[in-house]
Amino acid sequence: MVVVNSGCANAFTGEQGLADAAEMAQLAADNVGVSPEDVLVASTGVIGQRLPMELIKTGIEQITASRDGGGKLARAMMTTDTVPKEAAIAVSVGDIEFAIGGVAKGSGMIHPDLATLLCFLTTDAAVDIDFLRLSLRKAADISFNMVSIDGDTSPNDMMLIMANGLRGNKPISPGSSQADAFQQALDRLCIYLAKGVARDGEGATKLIEVTVAGAPSAAEARLAARAVVGSPLVKAAIHGGDPNWGRIVAAVGRSGVEVVESKLGLYIGDVCVVKAGCPLPFDKKEIVKVLGGSEVPINLQLNLGTATATAWGCDLSEEYVTINSQYTT
Amino acid sequence: MVVVNSGCANAFTGEQGLADAAEMAQLAADNVGVSPEDVLVASTGVIGQRLPMELIKTGIEQITASRDGGGKLARAMMTTDTVPKEAAIAVSVGDIEFAIGGVAKGSGMIHPDLATLLCFLTTDAAVDIDFLRLSLRKAADISFNMVSIDGDTSPNDMMLIMANGLRGNKPISPGSSQADAFQQALDRLCIYLAKGVARDGEGATKLIEVTVAGAPSAAEARLAARAVVGSPLVKAAIHGGDPNWGRIVAAVGRSGVEVVESKLGLYIGDVCVVKAGCPLPFDKKEIVKVLGGSEVPINLQLNLGTATATAWGCDLSEEYVTINSQYTT
Repeated sequence: MVVVNSGCANAFTGEQGLADAAEMAQLAADNVGVSPEDVLVASTGVIGQRLPMELIKTGIEQITASRDGGGKLARAMMTTDTVPKEAAIAVSVGDIEFAIGGVAKGSGMIHPDLATLLCFLTTDAAVDIDFLRLSLRKAADISFNMVSIDGDTSPNDMMLIMANGLRGNKPISPGSSQADAFQQALDRLCIYLAKGVARDGEGATKLIEVTVAGAPSAAEARLAARAVVGSPLVKAAIHGGDPNWGRIVAAVGRSGVEVVESKLGLYIGDVCVVKAGCPLPFDKKEIVKVLGGSEVPINLQLNLGTATATAWGCDLSEEYVTINSQYTT
Repeated sequence: MVVVNSGCANAFTGEQGLADAAEMAQLAADNVGVSPEDVLVASTGVIGQRLPMELIKTGIEQITASRDGGGKLARAMMTTDTVPKEAAIAVSVGDIEFAIGGVAKGSGMIHPDLATLLCFLTTDAAVDIDFLRLSLRKAADISFNMVSIDGDTSPNDMMLIMANGLRGNKPISPGSSQADAFQQALDRLCIYLAKGVARDGEGATKLIEVTVAGAPSAAEARLAARAVVGSPLVKAAIHGGDPNWGRIVAAVGRSGVEVVESKLGLYIGDVCVVKAGCPLPFDKKEIVKVLGGSEVPINLQLNLGTATATAWGCDLSEEYVTINSQYTT
């Protein structure tokens, strides 16, 4: 099981912080009747402050067993999030059926480096533990690891999956059709939650989806897509509906990825802005319309290979600054 | 000589852009009566648009010779800068005297990767060319390369130094006392101009100066200082006078530099916030007072070695977003 608090990250709190986390696990274990070794602890919030242990104790005492508490968890761990992020997916493959569900929270200091932010996933399928680890890593790499809200990596990223095996199936193992179905469902779920986090970034008014195609390798496609979605200037331009597409090619250019100018193509929505390295005349109104939508798709074609990656982020608004200039005051 | 325009970067403009730059050099050369090979071209502004050649032609035709045009240059090349950046320094060493002067412009897309933004320096000393190259590189590394305004590296960074030898001195060469004096003066001038650029960052209301001491190597000190000064969350907190110091240690922690928590010290102004890894109780009013100043000094002590580095940046304000959400509209 997992016990989660938000508002205080319990990061940079040294030995005392470790002791507080252990106590938090013990309190949760005692309340539910499991061993403290079976309790995982997750914290998010202000860095460098001790956990308010009295408050946490009071909170843990109020925990009651529930089969449908996912929605409450998604809501309880929100900080600057404006909407809870939760989703579930049902899978039927061969003779087994199972479900995967998950919750996630944002919404600042989001620039994943390992897993990301907080995301808790569960499934009632029995799953081989090595396969489960691998499939979570794969799903993280194409979902939460492709999200950037502000370029600040948090010390408290955490992504967990727990499989309780309640379905009683033979554990899903690599190479089976069940494994493929499991991975597909997990990928889809994680991308859905990750997009939810991006869309609800601090101060965000829209989701930005950047796809880089034709890269020499997946690593380069990922790097380029993340550079564009993480550029404050690209994000600010999109916020204002300013068709300043030069910032997009500048971000790719500085990303460290190989770019051949004469091969580069750029689409904003369905509008081709750059073809074979040449800026095309475009109807400004059409671009402004795309930029005014709640989802802004940007498509870059490097035309140097076959690898593709997609990254998600959000626009940069005055509201982001306002939120983060008074976070602890 | 150098011919400079601002407002249009002439970047991502392909063969046509190259031809336009050559024409710009030719026009300037014809006007002044030098060879086009002796003309350097610098452009800054919107990416992906052609230079307005008619306007540039008209402008170049109006250039007249002047011995005190530095101030006009500093002013003419401003875009979102609110104040011109210019400075000069007079040096007397042994039996020679010389001066170094310079102008620089910001003020967005500032996150140097090679030299930076636009900075033009001149000296009337005769200087050995290899030494001049090396001394410029050294000065750039501790000045403009330690400035970050928004994490977006520009495609149009340029830093130049020109020595005309009018003083008639024996060229300054490495290992001499003149060389030391020249380097010191150049360092000081570049740091002055770089701080001016940071202070006048888009939407900035204050200068942030981050010093990292006790690092195992200069490279690590630089990396850590730049990570802190570049963190949007640190910048936003300082903008709002929010003593959210956990973001500072979080930025160092993710910078890739070795950090031993139990050795870390952190000062905001003169106030010690963290000592030997332990958060200290502090008078919130005192910190708020420091954060409210026009210069905010942050001092991190890694206590792992002897290397030190300083980086400069500015706070992140709502105004930065406003400026950059309507840059081309």
